[in-house]
Amino acid sequence: MRDHGGDLDRARAAFGGSDWIDLSTGINAIAYPVPPLPSHALIALPTGSDIRALETVAARAYGTRTSIVALAGAQAAIQLMPRLAPAGRAAVLTPTYNEHAAALRAQGWAVEDAPDPEAMAGADLAVVVNPNNPDGRHWTPDVLERLAGRVGLLVVDESFADPCPRLSLAPRLADLGERVLVLRSFGKFFGLAGLRLGFALGGAETVAHLRSLAGPWAVGGPAIVTGMAALSDRKWHRETCRRLARDAVRLDGLAAGSGWRLVGGTPLFRTYETGDAATVQNWLARAAIWTRRFPYSTGWLRLGLPGTEAAWQRLEAALARQGQ
Amino acid sequence: MRDHGGDLDRARAAFGGSDWIDLSTGINAIAYPVPPLPSHALIALPTGSDIRALETVAARAYGTRTSIVALAGAQAAIQLMPRLAPAGRAAVLTPTYNEHAAALRAQGWAVEDAPDPEAMAGADLAVVVNPNNPDGRHWTPDVLERLAGRVGLLVVDESFADPCPRLSLAPRLADLGERVLVLRSFGKFFGLAGLRLGFALGGAETVAHLRSLAGPWAVGGPAIVTGMAALSDRKWHRETCRRLARDAVRLDGLAAGSGWRLVGGTPLFRTYETGDAATVQNWLARAAIWTRRFPYSTGWLRLGLPGTEAAWQRLEAALARQGQ
Repeated sequence: MRDHGGDLDRARAAFGGSDWIDLSTGINAIAYPVPPLPSHALIALPTGSDIRALETVAARAYGTRTSIVALAGAQAAIQLMPRLAPAGRAAVLTPTYNEHAAALRAQGWAVEDAPDPEAMAGADLAVVVNPNNPDGRHWTPDVLERLAGRVGLLVVDESFADPCPRLSLAPRLADLGERVLVLRSFGKFFGLAGLRLGFALGGAETVAHLRSLAGPWAVGGPAIVTGMAALSDRKWHRETCRRLARDAVRLDGLAAGSGWRLVGGTPLFRTYETGDAATVQNWLARAAIWTRRFPYSTGWLRLGLPGTEAAWQRLEAALARQGQ
Repeated sequence: MRDHGGDLDRARAAFGGSDWIDLSTGINAIAYPVPPLPSHALIALPTGSDIRALETVAARAYGTRTSIVALAGAQAAIQLMPRLAPAGRAAVLTPTYNEHAAALRAQGWAVEDAPDPEAMAGADLAVVVNPNNPDGRHWTPDVLERLAGRVGLLVVDESFADPCPRLSLAPRLADLGERVLVLRSFGKFFGLAGLRLGFALGGAETVAHLRSLAGPWAVGGPAIVTGMAALSDRKWHRETCRRLARDAVRLDGLAAGSGWRLVGGTPLFRTYETGDAATVQNWLARAAIWTRRFPYSTGWLRLGLPGTEAAWQRLEAALARQGQ
């Protein structure tokens, strides 16, 4: 399996210890309060109307009237996306999450790295993560809409867009036909990655194709029940956005105190230039705090936001000790 | 979406009513008692060791030491199976579950119906559902092992094999290399179809290929926690097999009283020749009991086993009224 954040196995194997604080992902550490799961949700096969109800709530949350399909996480959409067109020339705006390029190559696509949207013109398929992981770069809907006119299919992965709705292309999809596919993650913003839920939004044909590739019953009952509740809870969305924004400022303050420079981020994670990420990661790991490094940078370290005051205190104490 | 059992939407639309008894699937109506789900299971991304632990328990339950991958239901395996080899000539032992042929055709395979294993010799890929749905035909491991030597890849869908372990090829897989892939459903026998869990077992290369096609985090936390508990509970397995066997006899008795002939079945469902399945299905639907017909037979009707004494009584009463 490729290297990912979130897999504490490696940290435990290398450093032992228990009670780890996992800051290696961009998953919200304060999860949406899961409603009681009716036994029906575990027992019965989801019906077509169960799934349509969830998709309707999700479309409303994402501000779109375009076609939408529920899938087992944004990752499931990434696995299927390379099959929407005959394998050709793909461009991926990098550095970014490594699974898009991997899934495209596995399906026979020639994949080129692109440093910016302009460099992607002419590609048969282009992937932009917006806002981007791990560096937080982002592009306006206008920029991406122009790009959509210059590539075959534009895939915009909005896995971290929940706290930044103005960046989302979803509200414009109804006018973009089959040219754009937007991917959304449920588990990151709502802190429920174990549920495996995500969505793909786009033209009717593209979405129907994805639905057929995924097959019936692509999402489970617990994800449907929880997704319906969470995606329609606008109050929790607002309050969480405010809390994440505050906490991001707090983390930037700690980082600055350690002499790190902010590379960029979103309200769900922050990436810093630390000078020597391997040393910092090891130091924090000895305090049972797990972070994320990247193969293409010796200095970058990405941290999610701690979820409890105790976790903040442990992070602060560990950073203070390092400074001594 | 293709026609399936389990989708009560159609019944509700056609007949109205509520409090439906759904006998249209082969899903056990008395579900495994789900253990309390720790919040961790919903929140965290499953780690590699979580998934390996589940797969180890499943391999033991299926009596095999071969490679195994957890997927989001046997259906997820069916969606991926056509991509294990270049599209060629496939044979499907029919009549059977309609998704194998559909998934193969969608991936470019030429699919032929085969009436028996002998007729499949020479196929690049052969699919046998064992025991078969809906007619309950079954083949011994010896017959299937011989077939494996005469086709490219043999896919044996053992979705209904939990109550019939002696039919399973799983214990022989370690000696069959890359020639056989066995699919297992978790949700049918354990009555937890909403969880979306299944497995594929076979040669190391074939299973690694499937794992890579499915991508990381193919199963969710609730499925992992529940699957670990249920698959290691041999007492529940034994008692459930006994109860299903008793209840199948009870259903056959009711059917005989209605003048229906048993076509075949497994301890999870029974298929009867009713003479006029459309009329019988409508009659039962007016009593809010939903059953399954098949496009290729005017007489066949498939019924799952009722899960409560109240459901049995309603079925008995509906059948008695029909006889008057």
